[in-house]
Amino acid sequence: MTTTTPPDDVRAGSLPGDAARSAALYTEVQAFYARQAHHLDAVRAEEFAATFAAEGVFAHSPDTPAARGRAAIAEEVRGFNARRFADDPVQRRHWFSMLDVRPGEDGAVETEFYALVVVTRPGAALPVIGPSCVVRDVLVREGGELRTLSRQVTQDRTLL
Amino acid sequence: MTTTTPPDDVRAGSLPGDAARSAALYTEVQAFYARQAHHLDAVRAEEFAATFAAEGVFAHSPDTPAARGRAAIAEEVRGFNARRFADDPVQRRHWFSMLDVRPGEDGAVETEFYALVVVTRPGAALPVIGPSCVVRDVLVREGGELRTLSRQVTQDRTLL
Amino acid sequence: MTTTTPPDDVRAGSLPGDAARSAALYTEVQAFYARQAHHLDAVRAEEFAATFAAEGVFAHSPDTPAARGRAAIAEEVRGFNARRFADDPVQRRHWFSMLDVRPGEDGAVETEFYALVVVTRPGAALPVIGPSCVVRDVLVREGGELRTLSRQVTQDRTLL
Repeated sequence: MTTTTPPDDVRAGSLPGDAARSAALYTEVQAFYARQAHHLDAVRAEEFAATFAAEGVFAHSPDTPAARGRAAIAEEVRGFNARRFADDPVQRRHWFSMLDVRPGEDGAVETEFYALVVVTRPGAALPVIGPSCVVRDVLVREGGELRTLSRQVTQDRTLL
Repeated sequence: MTTTTPPDDVRAGSLPGDAARSAALYTEVQAFYARQAHHLDAVRAEEFAATFAAEGVFAHSPDTPAARGRAAIAEEVRGFNARRFADDPVQRRHWFSMLDVRPGEDGAVETEFYALVVVTRPGAALPVIGPSCVVRDVLVREGGELRTLSRQVTQDRTLL
Repeated sequence: MTTTTPPDDVRAGSLPGDAARSAALYTEVQAFYARQAHHLDAVRAEEFAATFAAEGVFAHSPDTPAARGRAAIAEEVRGFNARRFADDPVQRRHWFSMLDVRPGEDGAVETEFYALVVVTRPGAALPVIGPSCVVRDVLVREGGELRTLSRQVTQDRTLL
């Protein structure tokens, strides 16, 4: 994102368009990720899938083939939760931080950020936190709204 | 918050008011929560209470009745810290993430976000982190400043 | 940062310059810290050092003298990683949260935020998280870009 400082005359007056657009995009991405994570953690499969582009690709685990398109993404979210947590009920929370946002020439937006999953189980006072990941997304706009076109999740343990 | 994309002509010029206002509100809420948490974690009871509306309600634990109004909130913060940590000195840090901000018609703002408490004890190299919570606030303005009117904290363990 | 609410007439029209500038600065600082942490955690010593002012001071541990200037900061990052992690390979991730940003009269910016280090080791399914810290920075601009002039890191365990 643009980090050019406003010149002195601008500081006393209106903000330059570049700085305002960078701020608007950065917060829009933050809010987009918040709602996307809220859908995923509440297992609202259709609403989560709707945050992906029509041709979006969702690869959430190295052990699972990528899901392509919203119908497949919704099905993968439902199926993953059914398979993995049927006998191990959990409340998951996806936490993102240290977000970098780089707008491209073509309207696409590249992001890079850290992610942790916070997992609470019945009867446990404290959550289990991990794995630690780096996520790289390509976001696009459909009908004016941000959508995830692709997501690459790298678990830190695979870097060692 | 508004996620409408700027039309092409706007991308080359000034940012539309909606996007600029969304960005300003989103960052204002982030900064407001940062200062509110800094006050709470430093046990600055009066400063923390001052971040609530005059009629504000603070319910921080399922085991404690809600405190209503700034004087009661300040007293609850002092009392809670005295009761709970008198024989167990800790440094607490409230972490929030995945913030969604929804401005209402009437000037109120609804927020939803994840929260964790990071607790450091003497002699322990690592903090204890938890419980994992979802928080839903209603924020209002008093004298132009954001204030918490009400806060609903749901611990994840109560959802299982 | 400024939290003055826009007056009613402004809500219907353009955003006042103060609110727009606060939003732009807040998101610029968030993005700056994201890129700075990405450099540090990837041990890109030169790139990390370049996020400091020419006269910048980096004191990352109570056990290590502060490094002054970019060459010394890059050397300290390389040396610290070589000494500390030569026989203990790790992937570290610096997480910041609860960011407060206060612009000063002279163009400098004071920040205060919470920090945790998330450390993944080979063969461990879950990361180790800690210590919990409070960080206070002074940021300045060089060539229009934000740079860290000084950083004070306080580990919570030293407060107890």
